[in-house]
Amino acid sequence: MTGELMPATPDIQPSRLQITRNTNPATPPPSNELVFGRTFTDHMLTIPWDAVSGWGTPEIKPYGPFQMEPSATVLHYAQTLFEGMKAYRDEEGKVTLFRPDMNMKRMNNSARRIALPTFDGNALIELIKRLIRIDKHWIPKEPGHSLYVRPTLIGTQKAIGVGPPNEALLFVILSPVGPYYASGFKPVALYGTTEFVRAAPGGTGAYKLGVNYAPGVLPQKSAAALGYAQNLWLHGEEHYLTEVGTMNMFIVFTTEDGSTELVTPPLDGMILPGVTRDSVLTLAREHASGKNKLANLSGQLIVSERSVTMKEVKTAAAAGRLVEMFGAGTAAVISPVDRIGYMGEDIHIPTGEDGMGPVSRPIWTELVGRQWGTIPSEWSVPVTE
Amino acid sequence: MTGELMPATPDIQPSRLQITRNTNPATPPPSNELVFGRTFTDHMLTIPWDAVSGWGTPEIKPYGPFQMEPSATVLHYAQTLFEGMKAYRDEEGKVTLFRPDMNMKRMNNSARRIALPTFDGNALIELIKRLIRIDKHWIPKEPGHSLYVRPTLIGTQKAIGVGPPNEALLFVILSPVGPYYASGFKPVALYGTTEFVRAAPGGTGAYKLGVNYAPGVLPQKSAAALGYAQNLWLHGEEHYLTEVGTMNMFIVFTTEDGSTELVTPPLDGMILPGVTRDSVLTLAREHASGKNKLANLSGQLIVSERSVTMKEVKTAAAAGRLVEMFGAGTAAVISPVDRIGYMGEDIHIPTGEDGMGPVSRPIWTELVGRQWGTIPSEWSVPVTE
Repeated sequence: MTGELMPATPDIQPSRLQITRNTNPATPPPSNELVFGRTFTDHMLTIPWDAVSGWGTPEIKPYGPFQMEPSATVLHYAQTLFEGMKAYRDEEGKVTLFRPDMNMKRMNNSARRIALPTFDGNALIELIKRLIRIDKHWIPKEPGHSLYVRPTLIGTQKAIGVGPPNEALLFVILSPVGPYYASGFKPVALYGTTEFVRAAPGGTGAYKLGVNYAPGVLPQKSAAALGYAQNLWLHGEEHYLTEVGTMNMFIVFTTEDGSTELVTPPLDGMILPGVTRDSVLTLAREHASGKNKLANLSGQLIVSERSVTMKEVKTAAAAGRLVEMFGAGTAAVISPVDRIGYMGEDIHIPTGEDGMGPVSRPIWTELVGRQWGTIPSEWSVPVTE
Repeated sequence: MTGELMPATPDIQPSRLQITRNTNPATPPPSNELVFGRTFTDHMLTIPWDAVSGWGTPEIKPYGPFQMEPSATVLHYAQTLFEGMKAYRDEEGKVTLFRPDMNMKRMNNSARRIALPTFDGNALIELIKRLIRIDKHWIPKEPGHSLYVRPTLIGTQKAIGVGPPNEALLFVILSPVGPYYASGFKPVALYGTTEFVRAAPGGTGAYKLGVNYAPGVLPQKSAAALGYAQNLWLHGEEHYLTEVGTMNMFIVFTTEDGSTELVTPPLDGMILPGVTRDSVLTLAREHASGKNKLANLSGQLIVSERSVTMKEVKTAAAAGRLVEMFGAGTAAVISPVDRIGYMGEDIHIPTGEDGMGPVSRPIWTELVGRQWGTIPSEWSVPVTE
């Protein structure tokens, strides 16, 4: 995870960190008034980069606007990538991050794909910890709440030619967030989208780049106008299921021999390698192998990374072999689906009493236990002692 | 071209323009030192928008940095679109824009696709003219030079949820530019690219959005490492030719019955509807129909918007029926191609003595004549009297 693009220039150096305290700190709002991504803490982290000097002085300073040149490449050519991760505070006040190494690895992969500079992920984690420690009183105490951490890397070269930027800025901002489902899980309806694509072979769908997001806004509005919450992104003539809105997706079938199969599309270049996706797969596989049995999940579980077509979904639904379906991502963790609008008809999907299904419920319980620290695991990385 | 998204809020109103003169104007650099897109004039135009108030007060003010919130949607989700157009100054000092109505129409189409606000294109043209008039001494006097005009529209909502922004900023900056080919035309070699795509069905390739540009930087670097200047973007299993780098593309065949056929891919949703593309097609069709014969172009000309596969290109090259190939765009106008690297072999393409071919040369002559004002036409729109 070193700066491969510029081997001769300095990487990110936490020892050079400069801290300027916010002398006018804000009062965190009541947790029940939080709206996702609208409230930010008192401080932010910035690290400039240029092609000659490499990574410059990391600074933690008061949250506030940047000076941005009108010609900055990010404003014209979308040279931006980001990550989303969460810091949790347990009942004793101990703060943890969840699998931040996965985010750093993906962030560097994103940087390579878009010709932005790579960096030492461990150094950035160290600096993010410093930032969180300063603003840790912003993490709401209520269960299910967390601090959303948004590292972003943008091209800031002052020139409107299209090319690799010779200047960039990495910044990290923090936003206190409530639980995605404030009052129980609410299954969502999806619009099986064939008019628009999220990704294509040879494109950027496997990277967490800004370019994958803005084009999805209009399709989401179109789906909402038809009464569906999100897009189910379908691909190719066979209408392969790929992702749900801005989440990875899972579907559970009863196989013809009566086993239970948890399926998600493979990382074929169009699918974002989600941290929650990987965590769900890992927990399910450790259950299936007997390494770490999940509570309240009985019977044989098959875990598959394979392609699924809408034809298979329709056939399974008609045969009563569709068990459940859900999206998986950092914001919502697990988001159950109860309906797919597809080619003019609705396919109904079973959901449990509280909205979650028989496979997602035990996985979710283990996963959020590990995130919140009630279930100890290596995935939980201490920010404070 | 009115603000369809917000019919009840004010559109852009040139009468509200406020002008703040730059009290510290710069001296334009010598024209022979200009590098594309690195030098900007003394002033810029900004027009804010928000969902409640609509389009706000247009301002012409000193060129300088914006205050940009770290949470601004453009920095995270690539909510940006732009245009590229040129202002020319003729020998008498008269300044003109070339077909600006085409840019305004496309800019509004781009805005609709990415859920940014639309606007009255004529009003923006009026304001752009005001801006150019103030900085017209920045247009280099030398032949082939011009002022590149860059309207940009970005989402500036201060929230990191993915959705239509409730705040946006339209700005226009100006950059003096020299001729793309300072000393005669230099044909370029293309790498027939199958590993990466520029666009896909259901994607955004037909819109001038930032998201179409950043992902092309790495493929261009890869092509350059193999000794090719630009990517020839191929699509599908048949390897359809789509675009060249950031330009539309044209190819000229001798048909089996001896006619000359000028071909460009149709606007099927993956092709940018380029202003230069449209101008080349229009001039070629007016020649073919006899409405406006081009000088130094003899014989029957067939003008086709149709798909072309690499198989057809290879077959035509082998049979000696490949006449020429060129890119077409605002920056270079016409950019001849002399070679395509494809699946491990090079396909050589004829070029004329000065780099241009027998069809592109007469089209280019008419086109730049209309741009520079030496050939009067309705495409040339006066900025000054």
